[in-house]
Amino acid sequence: MFKKVLIANRGEIAVRIIRTCRELGIKTVAIYSTADRDSLHVFLADEAVCIGGPRPQESYLNIPSIISAAEITGADAIHPGYGFLSENPGFAEICTACGMKFIGPSPETMVLMGDKAKAREVAIKAGVPVVPGSGIIKNVQEALKVCEEIGYPVLVKAAHGGGGRGMRLITSSKEAKTLIVTAMAEAEAAFGSGEVYIEKYIKNPRHIEIQVVADQFGNVVTFGERECSLQRRHQKVLEEAPSPFVDEDLRNKLSDAAKKIAEFINYEGAGTVEFLVDKDKNFYFIEMNTRIQVEHPVTEFVTEKDLIAKQIMAAAGEKLNISDVKLKGHAIEFRITCEDYEKDFRPTPGKIEKLLIPGGFGVRVDTHIYEGYKVPQYYDSLLAKLIVWGETREEAIKRGERALSEFVIEGNLKTTIPFHLKLLKDENFIKGALDTKILENKILPKLKR
Amino acid sequence: MFKKVLIANRGEIAVRIIRTCRELGIKTVAIYSTADRDSLHVFLADEAVCIGGPRPQESYLNIPSIISAAEITGADAIHPGYGFLSENPGFAEICTACGMKFIGPSPETMVLMGDKAKAREVAIKAGVPVVPGSGIIKNVQEALKVCEEIGYPVLVKAAHGGGGRGMRLITSSKEAKTLIVTAMAEAEAAFGSGEVYIEKYIKNPRHIEIQVVADQFGNVVTFGERECSLQRRHQKVLEEAPSPFVDEDLRNKLSDAAKKIAEFINYEGAGTVEFLVDKDKNFYFIEMNTRIQVEHPVTEFVTEKDLIAKQIMAAAGEKLNISDVKLKGHAIEFRITCEDYEKDFRPTPGKIEKLLIPGGFGVRVDTHIYEGYKVPQYYDSLLAKLIVWGETREEAIKRGERALSEFVIEGNLKTTIPFHLKLLKDENFIKGALDTKILENKILPKLKR
Repeated sequence: MFKKVLIANRGEIAVRIIRTCRELGIKTVAIYSTADRDSLHVFLADEAVCIGGPRPQESYLNIPSIISAAEITGADAIHPGYGFLSENPGFAEICTACGMKFIGPSPETMVLMGDKAKAREVAIKAGVPVVPGSGIIKNVQEALKVCEEIGYPVLVKAAHGGGGRGMRLITSSKEAKTLIVTAMAEAEAAFGSGEVYIEKYIKNPRHIEIQVVADQFGNVVTFGERECSLQRRHQKVLEEAPSPFVDEDLRNKLSDAAKKIAEFINYEGAGTVEFLVDKDKNFYFIEMNTRIQVEHPVTEFVTEKDLIAKQIMAAAGEKLNISDVKLKGHAIEFRITCEDYEKDFRPTPGKIEKLLIPGGFGVRVDTHIYEGYKVPQYYDSLLAKLIVWGETREEAIKRGERALSEFVIEGNLKTTIPFHLKLLKDENFIKGALDTKILENKILPKLKR
Repeated sequence: MFKKVLIANRGEIAVRIIRTCRELGIKTVAIYSTADRDSLHVFLADEAVCIGGPRPQESYLNIPSIISAAEITGADAIHPGYGFLSENPGFAEICTACGMKFIGPSPETMVLMGDKAKAREVAIKAGVPVVPGSGIIKNVQEALKVCEEIGYPVLVKAAHGGGGRGMRLITSSKEAKTLIVTAMAEAEAAFGSGEVYIEKYIKNPRHIEIQVVADQFGNVVTFGERECSLQRRHQKVLEEAPSPFVDEDLRNKLSDAAKKIAEFINYEGAGTVEFLVDKDKNFYFIEMNTRIQVEHPVTEFVTEKDLIAKQIMAAAGEKLNISDVKLKGHAIEFRITCEDYEKDFRPTPGKIEKLLIPGGFGVRVDTHIYEGYKVPQYYDSLLAKLIVWGETREEAIKRGERALSEFVIEGNLKTTIPFHLKLLKDENFIKGALDTKILENKILPKLKR
């Protein structure tokens, strides 16, 4: 086992990792920017090193400074957390070159899965479905042929553009030719090239992901799925485990698919395989995150497994002997951020003058804030993760309402606690009728009214 | 289901009950003394009524005042918590007379089980072992006969005394006569009566208890055992579930015994059946607590059942349909009190100037304190219950150490956090080699050195 782990991160995830390290008997080194002097992770770690100025480039993305901190303190491993350098293959390589274990997969795996096109190829080779699509298409006839092959509805998209220009949704062969011609003309006008590509249109998909942890002996363990469809600008705001939509059969299929991919690339460490799932339970691989994720606690609650512990143990070369992954009950995570949801989620960093953290049965809070803490303006706006568990989804929702209603974070800042309380009252949420656009298209507009 | 529950208690248990009521959609009424104006339960409840002065007799034991508060606010049920009026049959009777449901068993059951001699008779009639013992004995010959019947070792005890005077431990027939004569003479001298009684001496017993919840339809559900041997002056300081000593066979036997007693008295509500268990796994009923207990969360952690919810549902006349009670993992509760363990656990109420509550995976905190809270001097010294869960006892211990080490309660008060940290390092504790005297006789003396 490692003797000393440097945590190359800040905020709640640094606190989270320090906790498990302590439980495993591993010493910890916190790093911090000058803006984070008073952060909780600095107090909780056994040692702490200031690595630079407030801006991420000066500190949490400053590889030489982080490596120096690890060398000075004699750390034998580095945990990157999520964000910052966690998916940077160069950083992983330097760690290894300096004789420290990077707690994550190999740099090669990170390069491979960090490239969406290559990751897509991996999935295809591993026999896992991806969203059907074409290469670049130059003429209308070819486009028509591809449309028929993929099957309607399809999306035709400008190859060199974005923002919806040169894009058309085609729902039947009847209208195909006209729409392809229009799309190509629009692409030509907007981007100077009429080239397009064609993709299967997945109507109102869900974002569902499978947690995996793999050891260095080829054992890949899956820990069930998470429902992460509630997103705003591609940022998840609330996650659940299990998904209210996934039955045993689909869970097995998704888990098998995730396992196939992890095995195909000889994956090591904790990772998440993400899928789009349509209303007929067809699923399509979209990408793999080669790190621990913000929403891992919902999986921990329903499986009763400490995923960070498994991740660290796998990185240390231990064999994972896990045969008892069963999902029990239902967990929901609320991301509490310092944002004003009534003003388009504008960040509102400020000082926390009064703090009451909820507790009791089925409630977990992961946070780095405390009464008197001043939220710095330089980093993401996550203040705390509130995670609740219930025997059923309904019980978890009730518990979530209760815990949110007793969560007090006061000061010259706003939080998303009131937003989450309203979200829990939304009828689509209550029914579990979710998709990746429902928050932006249906729920948020209603909250504004 | 009840519409509004008045919680006739204060502190962490009032907070605990409010939480579950909220989750069940029940409105809550807090009562408070003038010393508890700033207590968390007052803020969390839907309504709060001041019921009198700081001394318990003026407020939390003031039945007319509590009943008035319930009538004014229109509460249809009263939850007594633990302590205060929770085992007072008169209070239960008055609640019923005033048309409010007392959340607990009937007054008759409370009277019956509140009398140790009668409760002993119940156990005997229900076919559950009790500590073998005699009635009152007046002469040496009879005493000798009883000693032989019960079997050595036995305790001879003064019938009308206490404090160890007139008490002798007899380990063999050889020494019996001399010791009986001495005990009788000592009893005569000290209490004016030489009458004694004789009891089987249970060497180094453990205190192990079974949680039950019974509905109004005769269903008695057991939730496994708790190990509560670590006591100081008969007060539990740390509890575990399951007991490191109890195997499946003994668990079944203890659970059956508890069920027999509850069924025999037609019990209703949450209760705890307490046993002494010797090193050979013989067990003896000692008493039944007819209320929820401080240590119920360890059972909640390993069974994943909200016991207060089950208790309230049973009281409301719902049927308990619980067939899936399985114990998973291991939970430990630490009672964090404001006491100075280095000065014989002298209470040190004071103001909390700085508070950091531990969190993360496998950690639960039930508390009514917050930063800035002034602990009143009038009540018990419990500040918080820290409950940790692990896949194994070893993991739970590690998590307990981690959580205790990050628990900050600062101000002009001392807490038992350092005591618990030392306790976790004790080799007997680590081995699980516990009995009801080990804390006072072995562990505390070592801590003082």
